[in-house]
Amino acid sequence: MTQPTAAVLLIGDELLSGRTRDINLQQIAQYLEPIGIPVRECRTVPDIEEEIVAAVNALRAKYTYVFTTGGIGPTHDDITADAIAAAFGTGISEHPEVLAEMAERYKAMNTDFTPARRRMARIPHGAKIVKNPVSGAPGFQMENVFTMAGVPQIARAMLEDIGPRLEGGARVHKVQLRGPGLREGDLAEPLGAIAKAYPDVSIGSYPWYLGTGDNGVALVARSTDTVRLETVRGELEALMRGLGVEPIPDPL
Amino acid sequence: MTQPTAAVLLIGDELLSGRTRDINLQQIAQYLEPIGIPVRECRTVPDIEEEIVAAVNALRAKYTYVFTTGGIGPTHDDITADAIAAAFGTGISEHPEVLAEMAERYKAMNTDFTPARRRMARIPHGAKIVKNPVSGAPGFQMENVFTMAGVPQIARAMLEDIGPRLEGGARVHKVQLRGPGLREGDLAEPLGAIAKAYPDVSIGSYPWYLGTGDNGVALVARSTDTVRLETVRGELEALMRGLGVEPIPDPL
Repeated sequence: MTQPTAAVLLIGDELLSGRTRDINLQQIAQYLEPIGIPVRECRTVPDIEEEIVAAVNALRAKYTYVFTTGGIGPTHDDITADAIAAAFGTGISEHPEVLAEMAERYKAMNTDFTPARRRMARIPHGAKIVKNPVSGAPGFQMENVFTMAGVPQIARAMLEDIGPRLEGGARVHKVQLRGPGLREGDLAEPLGAIAKAYPDVSIGSYPWYLGTGDNGVALVARSTDTVRLETVRGELEALMRGLGVEPIPDPL
Repeated sequence: MTQPTAAVLLIGDELLSGRTRDINLQQIAQYLEPIGIPVRECRTVPDIEEEIVAAVNALRAKYTYVFTTGGIGPTHDDITADAIAAAFGTGISEHPEVLAEMAERYKAMNTDFTPARRRMARIPHGAKIVKNPVSGAPGFQMENVFTMAGVPQIARAMLEDIGPRLEGGARVHKVQLRGPGLREGDLAEPLGAIAKAYPDVSIGSYPWYLGTGDNGVALVARSTDTVRLETVRGELEALMRGLGVEPIPDPL
């Protein structure tokens, strides 16, 4: 089975100015991992159509799935839907069913369905709708590109509607062992030897420093093969114990 | 004056797997903003040399400065220094002064200067050193590319050594006004008119939803021209008051 892959495209000036710290990459990656779709690349671009178009076209050609967040609200800086239409060379206009649903929703909330709110019913031609149970205005799927809201709670809800449309791959299993007090410089050589001996298992080393006395190294191994993974777990545990540290298994 | 630009390249499997939520983009952007160097793009790539090389070469050709984080530690998955050397088509070897300083530092800490730790003294030929006052092992500058550690505290310290080497641009000033209870759909049209009337001022709209009753919209305007910015501030305040909300000035 070919392993499907994903890329994430984060859209918004606020991410590049430092105003906002992104959390969508993390939540998308955590959603996709259990269904065997690893995220291979992420790009963050400003609210500039040509930059969005270039990134969408580069990523959709290279990865099985692309997930974009941001820029589908009602204001002038929300240009993602137009950019996606441009990237696919298709038109964009109000989607009749979306428009009807939104009109009803705003009526029920006793809120004006302003022209600005109607902008959120503009969907690139040929796209499938992605439901937004949080605030109504939908995302959409254009071939292998899923366009979601930037507000994390809404993006998370949209993933639930997208999930069943994805063809997952082999589940990547993982082991994480924490070694309090360990230092990377002491374990790097035997760890490198283990990584070399098990090229089909991805092994990462992540030091932490949370203040005096609270530091160490977490070792993470990932593989689709649970038998190989358990063998590597044994090797990593032996490595830590050889350095005088009892490994602590840790859920990721 | 031409405005300098920057790109950020985040390197590490842990960012794409969802294990770690990045904060380096935000802190780099916040460091560069006051010296007039806007971040225009960010990419996140895995610990795979060809991916790092391709991203470095794409970004360094397009932006004035590139800042990379991650992958310069002592373990087998720390391959950024080699990737930077490959991207520039240059060699890499132990830097004599770095090696001497690190040897002394580890001796003072009564810690073995293992071959793995010596790996951190390998610097691409022609690079200038970037000091690491936190843990010793340095970053480096290769032409317009600055390579920093992934640990946020270390990356932050390295920025202090990099700062004086950067040629800043016109300072971008900003105004942020918070409007509790505002909804984007109600202000989007007059806001769009303001944005159109002041094309030299960048205006963003950022809704927040922090639970029942705590929601609203923050409007942010940015410009190098403080006079124009104050005019726009007046327009935005009038817009909010016209919707019955007293704007709250907010430090960014």
